[in-house]
Amino acid sequence: MKILIAPDSFKDCLSAHQVANAIRLGIERIYPEARFQIAPMADGGEGTVESVIDATRGKMVELPVLDPLMREIGSFYGITGDGSTAVIEMAAASGLELLERSERNPWITSTFGTGQLIKDALERGCGRILLGIGGSATNDGGAGMAEALGVKFADQNGVSIAGGGGFLGQLATISMEGLDSRIVETEIIVACDVTNPLTGNEGASAVYGPQKGANPQMVVQLDHNLKHFAGIIKNQLGKEVTHVQGSGAAGGLGAGLMAFLDGKLKKGFDMVAEVVGLEEMVKVADLVITGEGMMDSQTRFGKTPYGVAQLACKHHKPVIGVAGTLADGAEVLYQEGFEVIMPIQEKPADLAYALSHAEELLERTGERMARLIRLTL
Amino acid sequence: MKILIAPDSFKDCLSAHQVANAIRLGIERIYPEARFQIAPMADGGEGTVESVIDATRGKMVELPVLDPLMREIGSFYGITGDGSTAVIEMAAASGLELLERSERNPWITSTFGTGQLIKDALERGCGRILLGIGGSATNDGGAGMAEALGVKFADQNGVSIAGGGGFLGQLATISMEGLDSRIVETEIIVACDVTNPLTGNEGASAVYGPQKGANPQMVVQLDHNLKHFAGIIKNQLGKEVTHVQGSGAAGGLGAGLMAFLDGKLKKGFDMVAEVVGLEEMVKVADLVITGEGMMDSQTRFGKTPYGVAQLACKHHKPVIGVAGTLADGAEVLYQEGFEVIMPIQEKPADLAYALSHAEELLERTGERMARLIRLTL
Repeated sequence: MKILIAPDSFKDCLSAHQVANAIRLGIERIYPEARFQIAPMADGGEGTVESVIDATRGKMVELPVLDPLMREIGSFYGITGDGSTAVIEMAAASGLELLERSERNPWITSTFGTGQLIKDALERGCGRILLGIGGSATNDGGAGMAEALGVKFADQNGVSIAGGGGFLGQLATISMEGLDSRIVETEIIVACDVTNPLTGNEGASAVYGPQKGANPQMVVQLDHNLKHFAGIIKNQLGKEVTHVQGSGAAGGLGAGLMAFLDGKLKKGFDMVAEVVGLEEMVKVADLVITGEGMMDSQTRFGKTPYGVAQLACKHHKPVIGVAGTLADGAEVLYQEGFEVIMPIQEKPADLAYALSHAEELLERTGERMARLIRLTL
Repeated sequence: MKILIAPDSFKDCLSAHQVANAIRLGIERIYPEARFQIAPMADGGEGTVESVIDATRGKMVELPVLDPLMREIGSFYGITGDGSTAVIEMAAASGLELLERSERNPWITSTFGTGQLIKDALERGCGRILLGIGGSATNDGGAGMAEALGVKFADQNGVSIAGGGGFLGQLATISMEGLDSRIVETEIIVACDVTNPLTGNEGASAVYGPQKGANPQMVVQLDHNLKHFAGIIKNQLGKEVTHVQGSGAAGGLGAGLMAFLDGKLKKGFDMVAEVVGLEEMVKVADLVITGEGMMDSQTRFGKTPYGVAQLACKHHKPVIGVAGTLADGAEVLYQEGFEVIMPIQEKPADLAYALSHAEELLERTGERMARLIRLTL
């Protein structure tokens, strides 16, 4: 019996690898002869680098970059086991969590550090770069990122403009001449599950600006600046990015990656699944197990367990979900191909208990599942 | 597929019948063709009457009796569907829960009301009486119960002594002449899971007296009185009850039932299982499901799920336990024949949530179990 265990991480609790391993231990008690394939998954957000490294036996690269406020910090990205592909979480260089609450300020925050990570990957010969772009502190349309790779942004006097979305209003010319030449031969894939356009009521500034520290007036100005930015991209680079779904992701980094690096947007789960070769693993499995810290009716919208279930169904493999919290409405997932969804809790208990006991709860849930599967009537 | 569902009640939450029905509803979603046998169980304690009535399509009898302080209250007992057997919970007439905390006083509390329930059952022609004796407020050695059935307890002047364990020290003669004559032809079975002797350090007064309101001095005197009582029983009735396991149950009611009514002590679960015909149901089942509000390592010691599991194992039927709370150490139950034990919780939540959602949680747990059983690899 071949069992594929491909969960997401349990947020603030266990990595995807730990989750998968605990489930495996429980099942092994009942099926010691089973063969297991562990595929730690992610949906392009936090944990994506770790999962891809785990799944491909890749390595972590650590390096100094500039944070959203252009201060040097330690950052990281991953390279797959075959060395072909870099996996970058933009939040590791340009994330909101790198700032104190009082430091949040999308007027000046820059994606420069994300560009540095990309540049390092180019230097290590990666021909493909996967970018998870959730959790940004920025609203600069990816200008900072492009600048780090050699693109020049100047005002009408030919003077480089300052970094940060607040200064894009002064932009007059974009020069692609200095762009790192290796970019042309590099496939850039951007994990993006949001569909926001660059500007307008559903755009980057209006929807995500406030949580990054923008007040209402700043939101208006930032939105105006991104419109101006997109206009110049259209005029000078011939690319229309304003209305592309996902161009508003990560403060417009989505648009910048498309405009400057010819990046292709992809669903986060699909990106991770492809790089770890999930579908091939599903094909040879007899049973697929996935899961996430919380599963509910929202799981249908791009979350890892849903993606795994879709692949399993495509290949007619039974799929089981495992969740720390099974929230109201989770039963709709039975219509999405899940054979069963197992919560791991064993008693009324608070979140702190659940988090601190998750590993053993997962293990015993794995055993329970195996015991019931073994039972034939 | 024939499925027997034989749980105990979930204390302070759902009756055994409600528990069984919720599980059934969940399983039916997956196995609409399955045939179900519902057997609400109990272990001789609270809920025993309801379970036996449910299981045998019997009826409830309501009647006024005297409570432990000899005040008239409404009480009840059950009669099985075939009319042959009465099922009495002594706590319904002589229970600690009938008293305010300040009223607890084993010096004067009497089992008289329990005797009234027995008398009513005799009058309705029951040839067998099952007695659950947990939760008593009394320490009278069953003298009050016997008195209600015609036994006379007199002091050395031939004057009837007052009721309550405090007055047994004055006892000089027991007259069985007035005992209801139907008792001789009636089988009296007493559900008793405790092994305490009537007197001494492990006796009724020492172990259970304090929770019934006795202070240390009263405990000494009550224990002395029960010794005296047992001595007169031995001398005048020729019965040795002091050291019989369980004679100390329910303030010595165990001893009184043996001495005056020739009652036979039995494990509570065995008594209930017999009257509902559980073993016959197990024999024809393909799967047995049991459960209780809490399951843990203590479940091995006389609790309903353990009893059900033993019967299932005897007949080589797979047995599943379902629990609202699966406490630490519950895994030992896998060595007692349980195929699997399923907790019903779906998320970190407090007890109030668990209690108020138990029915739907049980239903979804039933569905989950069925989904996993259906899965074959």
